[in-house]
Amino acid sequence: MSRLVKIYDTTLRDGTQGEGVAFSMEDKVRLAQRLDVLGVHYIEGGWPGSNPKDMRFFRRIQDVPLKHARVAAFGATRRPGIKAEDDPSLQALVEARTPVATIFGKSWPFHVTHALGTTLPENLAMIADSVAFLGRHVEEVVYDAEHFFDGFKRDREYALRTLEAAEGAGAQCLVLCDTNGGSLPHEVAEIVREVRRHVRVPVGIHAHNDGECAVANSLAAVLEGAEQVQGTVNGFGERCGNANLISVIPNLALKLGIQAIPDLGLRELREVARYASELANRTPWQHQPFVGDSAFAHKAGMHVSAVLKHPETYEHVTPELVGNRRRVLVSELAGKSNVLWKAQEYGLDLGKDTPETRRILETLKALEDEGYLFEGAEASFELLMERALGNHRTWFELEGYRVTVEAREGDREPFAEATVRLRVKGIAEHTAAAGNGPVNALDHALRKALEEFYPHLREMTLIDYKVRILDESRGTAAKTRVLITSGDGEDTWGTVGVAHNIIDASWQALVDSIEYKLRRAERRGLA
Amino acid sequence: MSRLVKIYDTTLRDGTQGEGVAFSMEDKVRLAQRLDVLGVHYIEGGWPGSNPKDMRFFRRIQDVPLKHARVAAFGATRRPGIKAEDDPSLQALVEARTPVATIFGKSWPFHVTHALGTTLPENLAMIADSVAFLGRHVEEVVYDAEHFFDGFKRDREYALRTLEAAEGAGAQCLVLCDTNGGSLPHEVAEIVREVRRHVRVPVGIHAHNDGECAVANSLAAVLEGAEQVQGTVNGFGERCGNANLISVIPNLALKLGIQAIPDLGLRELREVARYASELANRTPWQHQPFVGDSAFAHKAGMHVSAVLKHPETYEHVTPELVGNRRRVLVSELAGKSNVLWKAQEYGLDLGKDTPETRRILETLKALEDEGYLFEGAEASFELLMERALGNHRTWFELEGYRVTVEAREGDREPFAEATVRLRVKGIAEHTAAAGNGPVNALDHALRKALEEFYPHLREMTLIDYKVRILDESRGTAAKTRVLITSGDGEDTWGTVGVAHNIIDASWQALVDSIEYKLRRAERRGLA
Repeated sequence: MSRLVKIYDTTLRDGTQGEGVAFSMEDKVRLAQRLDVLGVHYIEGGWPGSNPKDMRFFRRIQDVPLKHARVAAFGATRRPGIKAEDDPSLQALVEARTPVATIFGKSWPFHVTHALGTTLPENLAMIADSVAFLGRHVEEVVYDAEHFFDGFKRDREYALRTLEAAEGAGAQCLVLCDTNGGSLPHEVAEIVREVRRHVRVPVGIHAHNDGECAVANSLAAVLEGAEQVQGTVNGFGERCGNANLISVIPNLALKLGIQAIPDLGLRELREVARYASELANRTPWQHQPFVGDSAFAHKAGMHVSAVLKHPETYEHVTPELVGNRRRVLVSELAGKSNVLWKAQEYGLDLGKDTPETRRILETLKALEDEGYLFEGAEASFELLMERALGNHRTWFELEGYRVTVEAREGDREPFAEATVRLRVKGIAEHTAAAGNGPVNALDHALRKALEEFYPHLREMTLIDYKVRILDESRGTAAKTRVLITSGDGEDTWGTVGVAHNIIDASWQALVDSIEYKLRRAERRGLA
Repeated sequence: MSRLVKIYDTTLRDGTQGEGVAFSMEDKVRLAQRLDVLGVHYIEGGWPGSNPKDMRFFRRIQDVPLKHARVAAFGATRRPGIKAEDDPSLQALVEARTPVATIFGKSWPFHVTHALGTTLPENLAMIADSVAFLGRHVEEVVYDAEHFFDGFKRDREYALRTLEAAEGAGAQCLVLCDTNGGSLPHEVAEIVREVRRHVRVPVGIHAHNDGECAVANSLAAVLEGAEQVQGTVNGFGERCGNANLISVIPNLALKLGIQAIPDLGLRELREVARYASELANRTPWQHQPFVGDSAFAHKAGMHVSAVLKHPETYEHVTPELVGNRRRVLVSELAGKSNVLWKAQEYGLDLGKDTPETRRILETLKALEDEGYLFEGAEASFELLMERALGNHRTWFELEGYRVTVEAREGDREPFAEATVRLRVKGIAEHTAAAGNGPVNALDHALRKALEEFYPHLREMTLIDYKVRILDESRGTAAKTRVLITSGDGEDTWGTVGVAHNIIDASWQALVDSIEYKLRRAERRGLA
C-alpha cells in the first residue's frame, strides 16, 4: 500500500493533559524541533485561548526554522449565540499566527444539549461559522469531530451532518475522534468506511487508549482510507493516553508499507521517545514496543543462540530500523550462553562449562537474590566477572566513611558533609567535603581522595542517579537499590548498589563506577 | 454475542520471561489463588522440565484448593528421533500431575529445519506423538502453535498440517501464537478465519505486544470465533509483553458482551493488577487502561464539572465495574473547580473565587514549579490547604536534627543514627535513635520524641516509601522527591517532600505524615 498518510503530533497539546506530564515553554520548543527532525507533518503546539504559556510558545516558535512540520494551534468552535469574529477563543487562534488551525466541535447530540447547552441546529452553525472564519485567516483548517464514534453510534445522521457542516465551510481534513477511547478496531473500521462514503475531503483519526486499542484503532482507520493520524510521542495523554505515534509510525512503515516519515526519521524514533520522556520527567517505558530497552531483549536461555544466528525469525522488525538494538539479558533464567555472550561483548574469554562460568553464574544468582539487578548496570557485571575470575585489581582500600546531615532552626537547607578514609598506593588519605545532599558529599570526598593519584577521574561525571526502593511495603526500613550512570564524554556506563542503607547502596555504586573508569583507562595504558 | 471464551493465564510462566519480573515460589502460589478468585479458567504455572522452582510449584499447588481454575503445566514437543515416553521434558510434564498439559510445537518450516535441526515430516510426527502421549496421562491437552502467524504467511499448507497433526492426536484446543508479536489485527482476523475452516476443535489466541496490538489481536481472534485467550496480568512478558488480560477481559465483557469471568471477578481486576505488580516488585502502570490510577482521572479544568454531572458521556466504562474509581487531579492546568472538588472531598468549605481559593492555587503552582506533585500525596495537599486558610495547628517545633551514617573497615553494615531536638507543648525534647538507614533512624528518633505526648502515633505505620530523582541528569546533585504512604489500620494517606537533600525531603514527608495523623485524631476528639 503506497500512499501518503500524514502524521499529526499533539504531544505538546493533548499530551500535556496526561497525569504527570508538563513541559516548560522552552521544553516545548526543544521538543518541536526534535519532532521536526523526525519528519512529522503537523505539530500541534497548544491551545492559545486557554493559557498564556501556550500563546508565548506560538510567539516563540515563529523564530524557529522548521523543515518538515507545519505548526497547528488548537481551539474550539465559537460559543453559541455569538458571531465567530467576536469569539475571543477564535481570535486567539488567529493571533497565534500558525499556518494551521485545528478546531473541535461536538458530534454527539447529548453533548450539544447538555455540555454546550444549545440546540442541534445551532451546533451545526457554530461548526460552519468557525471553520469559515478560520479559513479566511489561516492556510489550512483541520476539523476535529469530538466524541465522533460514540456520537455516531447514538445518532448516525446527526454525526454525519456535523462533518458535512465542516466540509461545506472549507475544512481540509475531518478528524474522527474517539475522545473517550473505548472504541474497538472493528467498530472504527466500519464507521470510517461509512464516513468516507459521505464526505470528499480527507478523513483523519484521533484515538485514545482507554481500551488498550489506540494504535490498532489508528491502523484500522488507515486501512479504511484515513489520511491523517493524530497521536502523541509515547502515547502521552489524558487518562490512558493518546495513540502512540512511536508505534503507529513503524507499524505503518514496516508492516503496511506506508512511509509516513522519512527513513532517517524512523531511525530517530527511539531517541525522540527517550527525549520526550526526559523532558516530561517520566521514566522511559522499559517494555515500550519498538523503542523500549526490553523491546529486543532476549532472556530465555534456549533462545539466545538461535536469535544470534537468525534474528529475523525471532524479531518482528530489525531493531536498528527504529534506532533500537538487540540485548541479551543477564538473569536467573539465563543459560550459560547468555553469560558467554555478555562476556564476549566485554572481551573476556570464558570457555563453556568451565569452573569460572559456573562461579560467575552462582555469584550472579546469589546477588540477584539480594536484590541486585544487572540489567542496566553492565559495568558492575563486568567487575563481577573480573572478581570471579580473580583478575580484579584493587585501586584503593576503604578504612571508613562518615556522612552527616544536620538541620538547624532558621537554616534554609540542612548541611551535608562527608569524610572518607582510604589507603591509596600505600598512602593513607583522609578527606572531607560538603555537598547538597549526603550522597553528593560522599561523591565529592571520595574523588578528592582519589584524583591526585588517578587524574583521569577528572574526566568522569555522574550522569544519572536513580533510586528504587525494593520491597516498598517495609517503609523506611526497606532495601534500596541505587543505579548510577557515569560518563567521560566518550562512553557511558551503569553501576548498581543494594543495601538497607541508601548511603551504603550509593557508596557501592559510586565505587564500582570509579573502578570501572580506572580499569578502562588502564586497559588503554593511561593509568 | 453471548458465547463462552475461556481465559488462560500464563503470568506465572510466560509473564516471568519479562525483564524485571520474577516471582518466588510462594508468590506464585499466592498469585494463583488470586487468579482463581478472579475466575480465570486456566492458570499456567510453569515449565516443569526447565527449572526446579517450577516443579516445586506444581507439587505445592496440589494442596491448594482452587474453585474456578484448572492448573496447566507447559512444555515442548518431544525431541527429534526419540519416543515421546523417553523424552525427559514430557516425563516432567506428566510428573507435574496437573489436569492440563500445554505443549508448543513448531509451525514455521525455517524454525523446524534451523532451530530444531530436523525435517518437516519428523516435526509433524513429534507434534502428534507428544499430544497423543500426554492425552494418555492428563485430562486435557492444549497445543500451542508457536510462530503460527509468521509460519502461515510463509507456508500456509505446512502451518495447517501442524494443526491437523495436533488435532488428529487429540488436542482439545489449538492455540495460534503470534510469538514474535508483530502481527496486526486485520492479519490475525484473516488467518483465524482460514484456520477455522480447516479444523474442528476450538481455536485459541496467544498474542505478544511488539506492535502494541496484542489486546486488539486477541479481540480480533475472538470476533472470528477463537474460544480461548492466553495472556498475562498487566501484559507482563518477554520483550514488550503478552496480551494484557486486565484489558482483554473487560473489553470482552463490557464491549462485546462476552462474559468470560464472573461479574464479581471483573470488580477484582484492579486489585489483581496491583497485587501482581507488587509481587513482581514493579511500579504499577499509572496509565494502565481500565485499572490504572489515571484511567479515570480528569485533569482538564473545563471537563470536570461536566464529568461529575454525566460521567457516562466522558468515560468509556463505569470505573467501579472494574474496581477502579474516578479521580479529579490537582495540577497547574487545574481550573478552580478541581480545587473545589478536592476541598469538598476533604470537608473544607471553599467558596468559588474567594481570596482563599486564589491563595491555594498560587501556593500550589509555586510548589509544583519546585517539583512537588500532589497527585498521590493528598494528605500533604490537605495540609497545604489548611496552611493557606490559616487553620493550621502547630503540633511541635523543630530545633534541629542530625543524621549520621558511619562505615568502618570490617563492619558488615554501616551504622545509622539520628538525633532530633523539638519543642512539644512547651517542653524541650532531645532524642536519639538508630535505624537500618538514615531515614529509618530519623523516623525512629522523631517518633520517640512525639509518642509520649501523642500516644495515637503508635497506631501509625509507614506503609510505603518511594524516592524519585527529579532532573536525573544532574547526578547526585539532583533534586529528590520523596513520597510516603502511611496508615493506621483504618485509613492510608500519602505525603510528599522535595529537596536537594534526600534526608530533608524525607523529613518533610515524615512530618506531614505525622501532622496528618494528629489532625485526624484531633477531629475525632482523640488528641
